[in-house]
Amino acid sequence: MASETWVAFPRWLASAVPGEPVREDWGVAVRGALIVDVAPSGHLRRNFAGARVVELPDCLLLPGLINLHCHAAMSLLRGVGDDLPLKTWLEERIWPLEQALMCEDFVADGSALAAIEMLLGGVTTVNDMYFYPEHALTAMRAAGMRVVAGLIVVDFPSAYARDAEDYLRKGLALRDRWLGDPLCSFSLAPHAPYTVSDAALREVAVLAAELDLPVHMHLHETALEIEQSLQQHRMRPLRRLEHLGLLGPELIAVHAVHLTVDDISCLAACGVHVAHCPHSNLKLASGFARVEAMRKAGINVGLGTDGAASNNRLDLLAEAATAARLAKAVSGKAEAFGATEVLHALTLGAARALRLDQRIGSIEKGKEADLVAISMQSVHHTPVHDPLSHLIFVAGREDVLEVWVAGQAVVSRRQPVGLGLQGALQRVGARSAMWQNRVEEVLAGRP
Amino acid sequence: MASETWVAFPRWLASAVPGEPVREDWGVAVRGALIVDVAPSGHLRRNFAGARVVELPDCLLLPGLINLHCHAAMSLLRGVGDDLPLKTWLEERIWPLEQALMCEDFVADGSALAAIEMLLGGVTTVNDMYFYPEHALTAMRAAGMRVVAGLIVVDFPSAYARDAEDYLRKGLALRDRWLGDPLCSFSLAPHAPYTVSDAALREVAVLAAELDLPVHMHLHETALEIEQSLQQHRMRPLRRLEHLGLLGPELIAVHAVHLTVDDISCLAACGVHVAHCPHSNLKLASGFARVEAMRKAGINVGLGTDGAASNNRLDLLAEAATAARLAKAVSGKAEAFGATEVLHALTLGAARALRLDQRIGSIEKGKEADLVAISMQSVHHTPVHDPLSHLIFVAGREDVLEVWVAGQAVVSRRQPVGLGLQGALQRVGARSAMWQNRVEEVLAGRP
Repeated sequence: MASETWVAFPRWLASAVPGEPVREDWGVAVRGALIVDVAPSGHLRRNFAGARVVELPDCLLLPGLINLHCHAAMSLLRGVGDDLPLKTWLEERIWPLEQALMCEDFVADGSALAAIEMLLGGVTTVNDMYFYPEHALTAMRAAGMRVVAGLIVVDFPSAYARDAEDYLRKGLALRDRWLGDPLCSFSLAPHAPYTVSDAALREVAVLAAELDLPVHMHLHETALEIEQSLQQHRMRPLRRLEHLGLLGPELIAVHAVHLTVDDISCLAACGVHVAHCPHSNLKLASGFARVEAMRKAGINVGLGTDGAASNNRLDLLAEAATAARLAKAVSGKAEAFGATEVLHALTLGAARALRLDQRIGSIEKGKEADLVAISMQSVHHTPVHDPLSHLIFVAGREDVLEVWVAGQAVVSRRQPVGLGLQGALQRVGARSAMWQNRVEEVLAGRP
Repeated sequence: MASETWVAFPRWLASAVPGEPVREDWGVAVRGALIVDVAPSGHLRRNFAGARVVELPDCLLLPGLINLHCHAAMSLLRGVGDDLPLKTWLEERIWPLEQALMCEDFVADGSALAAIEMLLGGVTTVNDMYFYPEHALTAMRAAGMRVVAGLIVVDFPSAYARDAEDYLRKGLALRDRWLGDPLCSFSLAPHAPYTVSDAALREVAVLAAELDLPVHMHLHETALEIEQSLQQHRMRPLRRLEHLGLLGPELIAVHAVHLTVDDISCLAACGVHVAHCPHSNLKLASGFARVEAMRKAGINVGLGTDGAASNNRLDLLAEAATAARLAKAVSGKAEAFGATEVLHALTLGAARALRLDQRIGSIEKGKEADLVAISMQSVHHTPVHDPLSHLIFVAGREDVLEVWVAGQAVVSRRQPVGLGLQGALQRVGARSAMWQNRVEEVLAGRP
C-alpha cells in the first residue's frame, strides 16, 4: 500500500516549473510518496498500464499550496473584535484572551481546526508560528498536513516559556524529538524586532547558521514598529537585523509592508525572502506592501494567510487573488504579478523560502506528491478560456476537489478521506463549543 | 401556491434595518411574495401554526444581496486577457471580441450564465448595463432574478443601436413593454463621460426627471478619464455632469475612484450614490476609492462586481470582504467600514440607490421576501463568536445555502431549485462551448 502506484489524468496540469506552460492531456504517476513520472497521458497509460487510475475531468492539477505564514491556533479567536482600532483589538481582546486561555490544549485544538480548514482549501504545507509549537505540530501532522514548525522566541514570559533562552531551549528540544518525521521541518521564529532583544537575535543568527535553519520573523509590518525602533535603537528594524547578522537567505521576512527603495535593494541583495499577507495587512490597516517592486528587484515572494484572528479566512486561494489584484493597483500596472507569477509564489517560491524546494513546490519527477486538483466544472468556470487565470482570479476554495500530501489522499470529492483528517474533525467538533464558552467568559470579564 | 404561507427559523437573523442588532432565535413569516411578520420564534410558531416550516439551523438569514453594478453578458469573456496593460486588454481583446460577437444571443447566453452564478452566490438583484438590455433582462428574469435593466446610451454605433437617439428610443420602448413585471425596474445608463456627448447627457437628465428613473454611469474611474475631460471639456467629468444637470439623488456614480476632497463634498451635497467595485478597480490598476471618506461625508455607497471580464468573479460576498479590508487600509483605520456598514451597502444602501428601498433591502414586514441563508456549519465557521463578522470576513459563496426571490425558492441546499434557474443551467451548458469556440476563433484572427 505504501508503495502503490497510481496515475492521475487531469484536464490541465500546471507543474509550476518555471518556463513550463499549462499542459493539456498530461498526467502524473505517483509511487508511495513520490512523483515518478510527468508526461503526456498516452505515454503514462502505456507505461503504467497496471496502475490505479484517478480521472480528473475538468480539473486543473497543481502542486499543493504553501502557506508561508500562519498562527494556526488563533482560529479559535476568529472574529473576536473585528473593526476595532489595532490598539483596542490587541489590548482589550487578543492579549487578555491569550493570557487567560493559553495552554497546550488551546494550541492543539486551534491548530487542528486550522489544519482542516487549510487542507480542505488545498494548502498542503504551513509555516507556523505560535506558543507550544510541539502541540501545533502534533495536531497538524495528525490531521495529515506537512508542517514547518516555527520555534518561537520572544522576550516576555508566557505559559509556554519563561524567557528567550527558555523558548530557544524548548524549541531545540522539540526539533530533536521530531527530526525523523518526513513531513516536518523547522524554522527559528523570533516573533518580531519589537519583542526580541539584540542578545536573543544574535543567538538566533548563530543557531540558524549552525543548524542550517530558516528564520521566520515579522518585519516592517507597521509604521509604528519602525518609529519605535528609531527611538529605541536609533535605526530601522531592517538595519538592526543587518547589524545582528540576520539579513540573509535564511530569513523569511513576514509582511514587509513599509520598505523604502533602499530597504528593497538591501533585502534583494541579501537574498531575504518575503511572506506577503495582504488580507492581514489590509484588515489591520497596516498598509500596502510593494510586491511588484520587490519582485522586480529580485526578491522571492511567497504568500501567507496570517492567523484567523486578523484575516479571517485561512484561504490561500483567496489570498492569492487579493495579492494579484492588489499588486496591480499598488504598482499602477495591470500587468503586474500575473497569474504565472502568483502560482510560483503559492508553490515553488514559498518552498524555496522554506528550503524545501528540492522536495516540494512543483510537479516534477522525484519530488514528493503534494498535489491539488481544482475542479472547473461549475457555472462560474463556464467557459474556461485560460485555466491559470481561472485558478488565480475565479477559483475559490469551494473548487478544491482532491488533495494529496506525500502521495496520500487527504481530501477527495471535497470530503475529508484521510483518517487523520477525519479524526481531527471529530475532535474539534466536540471541543470548539467548549472554547467558545471560555472565550465568551473571558470577554465578559469572567475568566 | 402563490399565496402559501411559510415560516423560516434561522439561528441568527440580520434584518439590515439600521439600528437593529443581529437577532438570535427570531424568524420570518412569508406569504406569497411578501414578508408578513418578523418576530421571536416562539411568537411565530404560535401565530403561524399551520404554515410550512423551513428550519435553518446554524444559518444567518439576511436580505438578498444587491449587485449595484454589472455587465452580466461579459461572463462569456471571463479571463480573456488578464494581466495585460489596460490599453492592450481593451484594444486587442475586449473590443475586437465585442465587435465580432455582439448579438442578441451573446447577451442572452452570457447574462443567463451570470444570473446563475449570482443567484447561487446569494445575489437576488442586479443593476445591469450592456448592449441589448432586453435580452439581458429576459434571460436574467427567466433565471429567477430581480433585475434593474440599464437602458444603455453611448455615442458610437454598435450592432444594437446606431447613435445616442437610437439607444434611448430602444431603451424606452423596452421599458414600455416590461412596465408590468413586478421583478423588473429600469435605470438610464449613459456609459461614461468619455463615451456620451453633452447633448445626449442633457437628454438623459430630462428623461430621468420626467420618468423618475435612476441614472447609472461610470464616473471618475481612471486618472486618464479626468485628464482627457480636462483637455476636451476644460473641466473634470464630475463638474461637467453638474453643468449638464446630472448630479442629484437620481445618479449612481460607478467606481468614483479619483475624487478630490471637493469632489466628495459635491457628491455628498447632491445626494449622489456610489457603486464601489473594488476588485475591478484593483485588477485594472484604476486606483483606490476612498470609501470611508465618502461614507463619512454622508454618501450612500453600494457594492458592485462589475463584469466578469474585469473581476473575474460575480461574487458579491467576496467583493464585500475586499471592500471592508481595503477601506481600512486606504483610510489607515482598522475600524473603518465595519461589518454592519458593509451589510448595509450590500442590501438597503444599494436598494436606496436603485429607489427600491420601499420594497427590498431589509427584512421587514411588508417588504418583498428576497432572502439569503448563509450556513455557518462548516469548519471555517467553527466557532462563531460574531455572526456578522463571519458574514463579511469569513463566509464565501460556498456557504450560501438557500435563496428566495420575492418569496420563491431559487436555491435550496446549495442546488438550483427554481424552474427558471434549472432551465437557464441547461441552456448555458449547451451553448457556452459554442461561445468558447467563437472567442478562440476571434482571438486567433479567424472571426
